[in-house]
Amino acid sequence: MIKPLADRVVLQKINPEEKTASGIVLPGSAQEKPDIAEVIAIGKDVKEIKLKEKVVCSKYSGTEIKINNQEYLIVKEEDILAKV
Amino acid sequence: MIKPLADRVVLQKINPEEKTASGIVLPGSAQEKPDIAEVIAIGKDVKEIKLKEKVVCSKYSGTEIKINNQEYLIVKEEDILAKV
Amino acid sequence: MIKPLADRVVLQKINPEEKTASGIVLPGSAQEKPDIAEVIAIGKDVKEIKLKEKVVCSKYSGTEIKINNQEYLIVKEEDILAKV
Amino acid sequence: MIKPLADRVVLQKINPEEKTASGIVLPGSAQEKPDIAEVIAIGKDVKEIKLKEKVVCSKYSGTEIKINNQEYLIVKEEDILAKV
Amino acid sequence: MIKPLADRVVLQKINPEEKTASGIVLPGSAQEKPDIAEVIAIGKDVKEIKLKEKVVCSKYSGTEIKINNQEYLIVKEEDILAKV
Amino acid sequence: MIKPLADRVVLQKINPEEKTASGIVLPGSAQEKPDIAEVIAIGKDVKEIKLKEKVVCSKYSGTEIKINNQEYLIVKEEDILAKV
Amino acid sequence: MIKPLADRVVLQKINPEEKTASGIVLPGSAQEKPDIAEVIAIGKDVKEIKLKEKVVCSKYSGTEIKINNQEYLIVKEEDILAKV
Repeated sequence: MIKPLADRVVLQKINPEEKTASGIVLPGSAQEKPDIAEVIAIGKDVKEIKLKEKVVCSKYSGTEIKINNQEYLIVKEEDILAKV
Repeated sequence: MIKPLADRVVLQKINPEEKTASGIVLPGSAQEKPDIAEVIAIGKDVKEIKLKEKVVCSKYSGTEIKINNQEYLIVKEEDILAKV
Repeated sequence: MIKPLADRVVLQKINPEEKTASGIVLPGSAQEKPDIAEVIAIGKDVKEIKLKEKVVCSKYSGTEIKINNQEYLIVKEEDILAKV
Repeated sequence: MIKPLADRVVLQKINPEEKTASGIVLPGSAQEKPDIAEVIAIGKDVKEIKLKEKVVCSKYSGTEIKINNQEYLIVKEEDILAKV
Repeated sequence: MIKPLADRVVLQKINPEEKTASGIVLPGSAQEKPDIAEVIAIGKDVKEIKLKEKVVCSKYSGTEIKINNQEYLIVKEEDILAKV
Repeated sequence: MIKPLADRVVLQKINPEEKTASGIVLPGSAQEKPDIAEVIAIGKDVKEIKLKEKVVCSKYSGTEIKINNQEYLIVKEEDILAKV
Repeated sequence: MIKPLADRVVLQKINPEEKTASGIVLPGSAQEKPDIAEVIAIGKDVKEIKLKEKVVCSKYSGTEIKINNQEYLIVKEEDILAKV
């Protein structure tokens, strides 16, 4: 199990192939291309995010970590842009 | 549906062709060329912006995201310059 | 109409030709050459600036925007140096 | 003995070979590859971390120090991402 | 007339030739060579500086502006080092 | 005598040769290699450090000064990582 | 006369030749080599420094100024490391 500290959130990326039937995802011309992820665990100071919600955050925020062959992304709540 | 967090605002750019009849838009010599966009969703801490209002923000602020083939821009309220 | 947010001010530059009869303006050797502008609209948190006042702000502050073929400059009140 | 100040935590890295039976650890594509470590000592202002807990922190945070041929990592609590 | 905002001060440089009889001024080996100037106008939040006082501020602080062929320097009070 | 101001601490490095009998010190692969030093004097705002304690601080923090042919290091208390 | 503002201090460097009889001064290997100076004037917010005290501050802090052929250094009190 993984338990983030303070205002941090543990995310698990949703497989890109699930996003659109056509497989065309994220053509975005923006400088920071976001990804959709599911909330796996939340720190004690997290306010707006709940477990299992799907969120968007910038690809360049946070730290990836692999535990038991499973990859997670740990971000601060302030780096989460929106729920989707 | 997309729900921004905290003081963030989800915007949808208004098609440039709609801006002026002549199609001449934004010749601005400024270093940051702004665009006009419509407010699609607002976070719980947003204060001055309401849904459906049209706003101007700097092109380089925020993060673009594409959901269901529709492109959005997520910015903080402080990056919105004015309502128009 | 344009309505700036928070502590922002919308300015309209005064035509340089109006500044001096001789047309010699701003020879200033300073690193940031200021311009004189008129206050067109103010945000709700603006404190010292009033509509129609003439102000000086640094050329490199703020964002230019063109609406209805008219060019404006949106700056924060703190970037306005003085009234003239 | 080593006693960290304020909100600092002394960590001892857990031998990478112990992480997975297969020996495949941390293939992470992230820009900051984290490591798992055990908490050896905590400063008086540390709030969420306790002795002997296992934590993840960014490899590039903190300062390494070797005392009595034993290597430690001293980090601020805010640089610890999660307990595992 | 020029009226600075908030904690700003309008200065007018004192002619360098007036500084020393020998005309040798400011040989200073410092990275920022200061100049002596007279206080022409003060903003409402200025605390220690009064009109007509002579002050020293760093040459690289503030913004120069020319009005009616007269050159002024607008600085924040915190950029004024001392009265002389 | 030397008396540091505010939250500063005057340190004297302990001769590296004294660290280990074998003379092998600080092979640390970390980006900031710390050194052990003794506390010689403390400013009035120092809270956790006492005279004569031995501490670790980053090599790149603080300012070295030589008085009466004796070298000291002046650091802020926040740059001291731990007591040892 | 020179009167520094707020938390600033006017210093006059003590002639290096006076430092040691042997004339060997400041061999310091540190990145910032400090100098000893005497306090000439203090601003109204200065707390720990008094007139005529001798202090050490980093060579790269503050601004040099020459008045009446006499060179001074104006620094903020926080840039003074210690009294000596």
